[in-house]
Amino acid sequence: MREVAVIGVGMTKWGELWEKSLRQIFVETALLALEDAGVGRIDSMYIGSMSPGLFIGQEHIASLLADYLGKTPIPAVRVESACASGGLALRQGFIEVASGLSDIVLVGGVEKMTDVDGSEATYTLGTAADQEYESFHGITFPGLYALIARAHMARYGTTREQLAMVAVKNHDNGSMNPLAQYPFKITVDAVLNSVLVADPLRVLDCSPITDGAAVVILSSLSTARKLKKPLIKIAGSGHATDTIALSSRKDITWLESTFQAAQKAYKMAGKKPKNIDLVEVHDCFTIAEICVTEALGFFDIGKGGEAVQKGLTSLKGKIPVNSSGGLKAKGHPVGATGVAQVIEIVKQLRGEAGQRQVKKARVGMTQNMGGSGGSALVHIFERI
Amino acid sequence: MREVAVIGVGMTKWGELWEKSLRQIFVETALLALEDAGVGRIDSMYIGSMSPGLFIGQEHIASLLADYLGKTPIPAVRVESACASGGLALRQGFIEVASGLSDIVLVGGVEKMTDVDGSEATYTLGTAADQEYESFHGITFPGLYALIARAHMARYGTTREQLAMVAVKNHDNGSMNPLAQYPFKITVDAVLNSVLVADPLRVLDCSPITDGAAVVILSSLSTARKLKKPLIKIAGSGHATDTIALSSRKDITWLESTFQAAQKAYKMAGKKPKNIDLVEVHDCFTIAEICVTEALGFFDIGKGGEAVQKGLTSLKGKIPVNSSGGLKAKGHPVGATGVAQVIEIVKQLRGEAGQRQVKKARVGMTQNMGGSGGSALVHIFERI
Repeated sequence: MREVAVIGVGMTKWGELWEKSLRQIFVETALLALEDAGVGRIDSMYIGSMSPGLFIGQEHIASLLADYLGKTPIPAVRVESACASGGLALRQGFIEVASGLSDIVLVGGVEKMTDVDGSEATYTLGTAADQEYESFHGITFPGLYALIARAHMARYGTTREQLAMVAVKNHDNGSMNPLAQYPFKITVDAVLNSVLVADPLRVLDCSPITDGAAVVILSSLSTARKLKKPLIKIAGSGHATDTIALSSRKDITWLESTFQAAQKAYKMAGKKPKNIDLVEVHDCFTIAEICVTEALGFFDIGKGGEAVQKGLTSLKGKIPVNSSGGLKAKGHPVGATGVAQVIEIVKQLRGEAGQRQVKKARVGMTQNMGGSGGSALVHIFERI
Repeated sequence: MREVAVIGVGMTKWGELWEKSLRQIFVETALLALEDAGVGRIDSMYIGSMSPGLFIGQEHIASLLADYLGKTPIPAVRVESACASGGLALRQGFIEVASGLSDIVLVGGVEKMTDVDGSEATYTLGTAADQEYESFHGITFPGLYALIARAHMARYGTTREQLAMVAVKNHDNGSMNPLAQYPFKITVDAVLNSVLVADPLRVLDCSPITDGAAVVILSSLSTARKLKKPLIKIAGSGHATDTIALSSRKDITWLESTFQAAQKAYKMAGKKPKNIDLVEVHDCFTIAEICVTEALGFFDIGKGGEAVQKGLTSLKGKIPVNSSGGLKAKGHPVGATGVAQVIEIVKQLRGEAGQRQVKKARVGMTQNMGGSGGSALVHIFERI
């Protein structure tokens, strides 16, 4: 397999973009990425999107977006793994370039979530859970993650305040990210006093409903070397699955798919947790970030909450987590999230992250997750 | 890139399977394919499915199906390109094995279409067209293909009877396929007198609504050699896109994406149309088969209808088309169709096609198409 680099990134402001359609949001973003890469030609496209069928009544979007970007007849592939669709698109693009079939591949993620009302959005997000054993019976994603939170609190002593501190940290970081949906700070008190969604989770523990896209351009390392820009290599890629129903798992506080995907990525990259300078993780709910940092091996099992409280995951901590603001502050257009994580890592490794720059960042990681962990993608990036 | 073989195939009876769920249909089919391959281990899975979100309220199905097949934590990827989702799954599995990342990969297609009523199914299929410029204004897929048929008739003199002959031939073939949804013969008169759907297309010009799955197992050629079975190699793979809106095309009777995908597949395989012994094409409507055989280079432009009338596409003709019965008689569970086409070709090349066996078949082709040709996948298979 050939080595693969990220040669361009593009992202536009996320939010409730009522005046723009999915195709428009995507094309504006893709043009930024192509401009950043300094290439015009692409050999193929991968698009991560969770449910354009339910959100906007449009399937077949990879061809649609290739057309609106002016790139037909190139191959265009939509991939879906619920909220991990973006990370999955990256992996599939990586495989295609690594195989030698293509040299320059566009990887995008996009979701238009605000064209439906809240109950329809909740229903659509629920299709990432097991329809027959979970969603049909009325449970929604805040409910599923609330079960995980309660179990983590009961077993490991994780506190309600520690959950809140995840959101506070991510909003601190997001306040320095002009493309974030909610670029402002919040306090622990604000989280604790926000509206209850599914006990113990309150609205400020939850990532928002967002419209947005994110696009990166991949190429072989040999092509990347010709571009005379900082070289960011995809050093490791891991993808794993787990049951999508929580009830089928031995331990709902342990994210086995994240653990398995991370093990594969670490092995491919020849790295260990101590070699990672910063990580973007899937904080769809505050409890998720705590569980993920344990499964990635940054903290001992059960110690993820304590780590946040001690500041180990803040920008100047042992392992900065979600310097972009995370899903919580940056927003969570589900199919785009996994690609936006890559953009943050690339910007950090290039030294282009502005106020939220992590010093001496050379190796970064992304972790993107579908549903309550039914799928997970972990990638490791290295500046060489 | 490594060479790739198809080492196992599995298919179950297609039809209106009201007593079975999507996961059940898939798992029964996948077990047949694994048994046929004689392998237990798979390294990853690719699932083609057009819209489980709209059809059964379930996204995230690759993880779900990996779980129900007992294969977590392996990577499982859902791909979607409308009705070409199955062919796309094959291509992505091919790329993964060719890259060297995996050695044995399961490729499946599945769709459960009869849990919704007819108008919901029509709406869902319409999401393969351009929502903003086509579907929203009321046109459905029979309408889009009726426009193509009228244009082909006007420009090239294709007759209403020639359209009917496509359906008659495919039902002749399908009558010898015990897994087909409609395994019986029909007549030209029956087609001409069937209910009008969208002038000139009648109900017997249209492929049906179907529940079903199809699964194949791929491996590197070196692994396949150890299995002591007929060796079927994937000799060529092509994937291309076009506008999904008909109104954006220069000529609606010409399927540019099929042409482009075929050119790539021919080039990779080092073959020409005259080297192909039989082909499975995407006859979602009778006119589609006629246009596709022209775009694949089997007949001159405008001569596809005449070719059917002369018997050139029948089982003993110059180029047998849809020996399986095609989408018309075999059924069309949209995501599964592209994979079922591969199964027919593999069975033919192995000499296991029973009554419908094409003599001396050594090189076969599949052509799978999304929407009205917004995407197309073409593969060439060779017995070596």
